[in-house]
Amino acid sequence: MRTAALALAAVLFAPDPSAFASEAAFATADLKTAAYLRDLANGGSSAYDIVESITTEVGPRMAGSEADPRAVAWAEAKFRELGFDRVWTEAVTFPRWRRGAEQAQVLAPYPQPLHITALGLSVGSNGPIEAEVVAFADLAALSAAPAGSLDGKIAFIANRMTRSRDGKGYGPAVGARSRGASEAASRGALALLIRSIGTDHDRLPHTGALQYAEGNDAPLRIPAAALSNPDADLLANMIRRGQPVRLRLNIDAGVVGAATSYNVIGEITGSKYPEQVVIIGGHLDSWDLGTGAIDDGAGVAITMAAGALIGDLKTPPDRSIRVVAFANEEQGLFGGKAYAERHQAEIGQHIIGAESDFGAGRIYALRAGVSGAAQPQIAAIGAVLEPLGITVENEGGGPGPDLIAMAGGGMAWAQLAQDGSDYFDYHHTANDTLDKIDPRALDQQVAAYAVLAYLAAQADGGFGSAAKPGAP
Amino acid sequence: MRTAALALAAVLFAPDPSAFASEAAFATADLKTAAYLRDLANGGSSAYDIVESITTEVGPRMAGSEADPRAVAWAEAKFRELGFDRVWTEAVTFPRWRRGAEQAQVLAPYPQPLHITALGLSVGSNGPIEAEVVAFADLAALSAAPAGSLDGKIAFIANRMTRSRDGKGYGPAVGARSRGASEAASRGALALLIRSIGTDHDRLPHTGALQYAEGNDAPLRIPAAALSNPDADLLANMIRRGQPVRLRLNIDAGVVGAATSYNVIGEITGSKYPEQVVIIGGHLDSWDLGTGAIDDGAGVAITMAAGALIGDLKTPPDRSIRVVAFANEEQGLFGGKAYAERHQAEIGQHIIGAESDFGAGRIYALRAGVSGAAQPQIAAIGAVLEPLGITVENEGGGPGPDLIAMAGGGMAWAQLAQDGSDYFDYHHTANDTLDKIDPRALDQQVAAYAVLAYLAAQADGGFGSAAKPGAP
Repeated sequence: MRTAALALAAVLFAPDPSAFASEAAFATADLKTAAYLRDLANGGSSAYDIVESITTEVGPRMAGSEADPRAVAWAEAKFRELGFDRVWTEAVTFPRWRRGAEQAQVLAPYPQPLHITALGLSVGSNGPIEAEVVAFADLAALSAAPAGSLDGKIAFIANRMTRSRDGKGYGPAVGARSRGASEAASRGALALLIRSIGTDHDRLPHTGALQYAEGNDAPLRIPAAALSNPDADLLANMIRRGQPVRLRLNIDAGVVGAATSYNVIGEITGSKYPEQVVIIGGHLDSWDLGTGAIDDGAGVAITMAAGALIGDLKTPPDRSIRVVAFANEEQGLFGGKAYAERHQAEIGQHIIGAESDFGAGRIYALRAGVSGAAQPQIAAIGAVLEPLGITVENEGGGPGPDLIAMAGGGMAWAQLAQDGSDYFDYHHTANDTLDKIDPRALDQQVAAYAVLAYLAAQADGGFGSAAKPGAP
Repeated sequence: MRTAALALAAVLFAPDPSAFASEAAFATADLKTAAYLRDLANGGSSAYDIVESITTEVGPRMAGSEADPRAVAWAEAKFRELGFDRVWTEAVTFPRWRRGAEQAQVLAPYPQPLHITALGLSVGSNGPIEAEVVAFADLAALSAAPAGSLDGKIAFIANRMTRSRDGKGYGPAVGARSRGASEAASRGALALLIRSIGTDHDRLPHTGALQYAEGNDAPLRIPAAALSNPDADLLANMIRRGQPVRLRLNIDAGVVGAATSYNVIGEITGSKYPEQVVIIGGHLDSWDLGTGAIDDGAGVAITMAAGALIGDLKTPPDRSIRVVAFANEEQGLFGGKAYAERHQAEIGQHIIGAESDFGAGRIYALRAGVSGAAQPQIAAIGAVLEPLGITVENEGGGPGPDLIAMAGGGMAWAQLAQDGSDYFDYHHTANDTLDKIDPRALDQQVAAYAVLAYLAAQADGGFGSAAKPGAP
């Protein structure tokens, strides 16, 4: 229905969609302000300096690590420095996972080291494991292996992720990471190795959280790690020669107790409806291997910079702009869930939300999950974004991982879809560093978020946010 | 003079250089055979399988490591498998350098780990060093610092290598690696860090040998390591903020006694002048971080494959083709020097030599260091290479590192110059793996080496090799 409505709108607006949409949805002054914000940000924003700051001054900031509180302090200080009206934190608790030393090597027939990294939340190996490796083309092939067929073996899932602009190769590949360990364990395996869920050819393995099966029937929790893609090639080439390939794995990792971190929130307070909120943000935590530049220093920086630009306007927006640097996205969306739990009574006041968590590539599309009545607003926002190379798409998309819980509860959402063609070259690796970011691409994104947030704050009527009946 | 002669030849041959050069320098049948070898190899050679074999079955093979004898055994077996007429080894001795654990981290004001790797032949740090870091733009800036100005400090040389097809950015940059440690030590430094001598943006530091100053006045030997390029950016960004940056370095490395390895030699025996030798090759050792695919599995594979193709001809070549997999190039050209010492009396019988040690990129030029009288032969060889996209260049070039000693003694040389645009992205890093090699580019190189070696073996007269008066 949403699609049909928008298709109709597109026909009506065809001669001059911008002008028509403007009249339909926004005051001319607001559209002018939005265009001003767009051009100001696109000509040079503070986002690169912000992501340079967090990567340099904090660097890796895995949830629950000693760097996590430093990241929280950094975010609070940065919101204040950028002139946000209100800055506060909201506590988030989660299991504390730690990574120690991790080593792998081929023992026979072709001894040489392999580059691995433990998957997030993996247990350790309790000392070295030495065993033969058995390769599977993908998770489905592993899942088709009979019970007991991997007794005493190390399972290896060799599937490759494919590259695409929208990251659609990730979904089919990532099951090996998230579910492979329990699938392998239920067939007797001592440990799991996977080919990295990534599109690069670098000797830098990709971490990322796994999920062990839960419940009384759940198999043993076995250690799981990713090989870098060149190492996965190497191991496959060894196995193809036909002799048994024996490995030694030694992984020191595990969950030890619980940790508390914080969603850090900066708000530009609205002048007319301060209790109504446009929520944008990214996640503050990163994996421990890189410096968290593209995942998700960029998202935090883009949305902080966009919020600050709106805060710098002479006239405050009608509604409040809330920028959230979410805690612990990587290990299970803890920050987003905590936010939704705490703010569930205010779902209807979160008039729309959008998260930036797909790297630092340029935005090419606006997608939205809003009421039919709000489609003209989306089209009008799209018209202001159009000079940035952004087009409205009527299908697909989502609110971003940390807003899934809010959107699930009934919050309207928008997505500023980024070009993620190279995102999975660096994602969750040591290579997630500042040099992977093009400052001009960040500016384009700040421009888009500023337009979206500002116009959402000025829109006549909302976008359809309303607590769903039956939602918690 | 060489240039002038070739320029004249070019004018004379202008209407049909190939045909005229043919008559001048080579029998028509030999040119036909060379063209056959070229087209056969270029259509698909064994080189990729050979480099796949050494990277998979041996992998890292640092000189003096436990893998070194396995590499020697691999090379002997591979020459035999490829049908070489004679296969033998010649001993090479050198200091045995070992790398242990290596760690670096920023202690203050922005604690985070740094990715480093010790430079080859570096001493260890004898436990952790904690000190402030002092940055220099390049080696010249460090060398201009007063004596004592680095007392108790860690020196950091930040110069960047520039990318080019012929690798000309390497020379100006590499002094920081080779001479920086002694320059820093003579000014009181406790340790040296350098930006990697490489053109990539990967979190994988580049190793490579250093040379400590020798003699009674030589400064203390201090540990030296390379930061990955993203880490060098990070450290520079920290230092630029103005507060003292303190690091902890812990490097376990050092020379322990001596080791013996072997030049491994395969020969296709000539039918008319078996004692006259065309020598081609690469080096068998690699650094320990990668699997030695482009440096120099490719060179070994290309020249082995080219030699084997000539060996497969129904009629053997007039002269012998000798393919050498040199021992320990990386730590000081030990294999090449040992070869020259052992064969110094036979310089005049080594009628020409060419080494492949610049990665796996396509060949674009033939350069030569030969007598004026041999220029028509070079032009004629160039004419056969021309369909491969290779042109004769009248200036520059060299024989390759392992043939420097032979060329210095008076051996004529040729260079098949490769496109090294991406060579220094991977060189001396963990990222030197098989996936960086394009099999079709290897085939082109096998074709070129087969043409060069075959025609050199058939040439009327030599290329000017003669022991230099006064050479050892």
